[in-house]
Amino acid sequence: MRAGRERSPVGSVRRSSGVRPFQRRALPSIGIDFGGTKIALGIVDRHGRVLDSTRLPTQAERPATAVVDEVVASVRDRWGEQLGGAKTVGVGVAGQVGRDGSVLFGPHLDWHDVPLRSLLGRSLRRPVAVINDAQAATFGEWRFGAGRGAENLLGLFVGTGVGGGLVVDGRLYPGATGCAGEVGHLTVKRSGRRCHCGNTGCLDAYVGGWAIAERAKTAVRRAPGRGPLLVTLAGAPGGLTAESVVRASRRGDPLAKEVVRETLSYLADALASMVNSLNPETVVLGGGVVEGLRPLLPSLGREVRARSLPAAASGLRIVPASLGSASALVGAAAFAREAPRR
Amino acid sequence: MRAGRERSPVGSVRRSSGVRPFQRRALPSIGIDFGGTKIALGIVDRHGRVLDSTRLPTQAERPATAVVDEVVASVRDRWGEQLGGAKTVGVGVAGQVGRDGSVLFGPHLDWHDVPLRSLLGRSLRRPVAVINDAQAATFGEWRFGAGRGAENLLGLFVGTGVGGGLVVDGRLYPGATGCAGEVGHLTVKRSGRRCHCGNTGCLDAYVGGWAIAERAKTAVRRAPGRGPLLVTLAGAPGGLTAESVVRASRRGDPLAKEVVRETLSYLADALASMVNSLNPETVVLGGGVVEGLRPLLPSLGREVRARSLPAAASGLRIVPASLGSASALVGAAAFAREAPRR
Repeated sequence: MRAGRERSPVGSVRRSSGVRPFQRRALPSIGIDFGGTKIALGIVDRHGRVLDSTRLPTQAERPATAVVDEVVASVRDRWGEQLGGAKTVGVGVAGQVGRDGSVLFGPHLDWHDVPLRSLLGRSLRRPVAVINDAQAATFGEWRFGAGRGAENLLGLFVGTGVGGGLVVDGRLYPGATGCAGEVGHLTVKRSGRRCHCGNTGCLDAYVGGWAIAERAKTAVRRAPGRGPLLVTLAGAPGGLTAESVVRASRRGDPLAKEVVRETLSYLADALASMVNSLNPETVVLGGGVVEGLRPLLPSLGREVRARSLPAAASGLRIVPASLGSASALVGAAAFAREAPRR
Repeated sequence: MRAGRERSPVGSVRRSSGVRPFQRRALPSIGIDFGGTKIALGIVDRHGRVLDSTRLPTQAERPATAVVDEVVASVRDRWGEQLGGAKTVGVGVAGQVGRDGSVLFGPHLDWHDVPLRSLLGRSLRRPVAVINDAQAATFGEWRFGAGRGAENLLGLFVGTGVGGGLVVDGRLYPGATGCAGEVGHLTVKRSGRRCHCGNTGCLDAYVGGWAIAERAKTAVRRAPGRGPLLVTLAGAPGGLTAESVVRASRRGDPLAKEVVRETLSYLADALASMVNSLNPETVVLGGGVVEGLRPLLPSLGREVRARSLPAAASGLRIVPASLGSASALVGAAAFAREAPRR
């Protein structure tokens, strides 16, 4: 058996692609992170290391098939017909993914019912696994990042929007229709702000990057005298963004500080809700907005613990993500390698 | 092997106990539902039928060991040394249960760190499984009641308090420290009503029976003219209870109807949050308060669906529990039978 396995063909690596040589047993996997503005592609080894990567603009105004065709062409062009020896392809998509690997709805991609798994599988001739990008990032952080070793884990990622993923009893839990982990759509305020999803009062509508910017704009309109720096930023090119609000808060602008304080309070509500109802042992927090708020994470953690049931909070770890922007790519690749073949 | 199994002693049934004869292969299990005011005991067959049952007052003012000793004596007295042929004992407890089967905190029992599993196991000489009572009720409804056949299920039970349980990928999910399913402690209102758990704004502090009664009292104080029936009830012996509020609402009292409407709205918020974050295929709603509100469950279901992500709500079933007050006893017995031995 062992000898047979050693002899099995693994494919050759095109040196020109910049892929470092790797062991035959390393079973690399291709990871693809489909976002609304860019698509990241990479070859990932079994230790979660990105051996080579590239990225493309998404140009979401094109039909989905054109986007997929360009991704396939890029993969082949960069890693050849043997896909750099990759045996599997894992994809994280900014959207809701059905358990059959089709994208049910990708708001930023403007995709509806795109059979991504079968499209890619047919062209790349490898087993393909498709999951939501925040689920992929959660899987990446769980296998190789800040969540290593946990049996039960919640990943929460805050960028322009809010996404999440759940590891339950040592497995990524996709949910009945693939949507588990959509913690951005916890209701944090009854009859509150309108969310992109159509509901009101969602976490995403308070702490997503878009929502922080909108809340800051409202705050400036209501009390311009209290936020001189925010007012300046609002009038500058680019206007108010989550990033500039966080920056102004660090520089002491009172109104920006208030917006940030409220943001953390909504996050604490949602996290306490999840800790109580799901009782994970580890919570991993990532994404651009979380990165910006990193100095405040310890106090956020204290608030979450204080608001959680003592039995649920005992032993709870709340940690910042450690893979940065590669988490979804790495996680998707690893998920595909480890997923049961269908 | 088969012959050996047939020969194995299964124990005799004391006819005087009222236990109906059952097949030797039926593997009955004893279920115990430890509540704050009463303890229900029963022998449950593998089809979830309660073959015989009894109940005791809890008298929670006694030390935990005295309560446990009385339960053990009752079991022996009723079903004999062979425990009516039961091979396992399953316990549901109103409280937070650690994964080792000890009761971390039982507020209504006034229990702290009671090693219930080992206490019972030593006395009854059977494998004992201890879980939270709402987890047990969820397991019962999943295996034998309204949730049969689901792979992913949320059970939500509203009585005096709110409890819940999660079935994930075809298994009861206990959580990292045994607390999964505490949906009563989702935050539904930021800086809202004080909850027994110490936090504020918990679902339990709005829709638990105790909270409905308190909210109705406040409503009566604020606008007595709008709730003539509530005012009468408040002055009557027994005063306002969740049950009397629901009754007054059915009889058209405007203030009671408002309290009930608000109760359902908080429930809808919490359920939409859970549907979005956990993506179950089935939600089972049970407990006394839910029973009282049963005519309103279809409209609750519609609101939950409307507030959930379309992909998470597609195919979602929201159904009333079907095992009534036996769900925790039946579920605990079945869980013990099916749980891996430790």
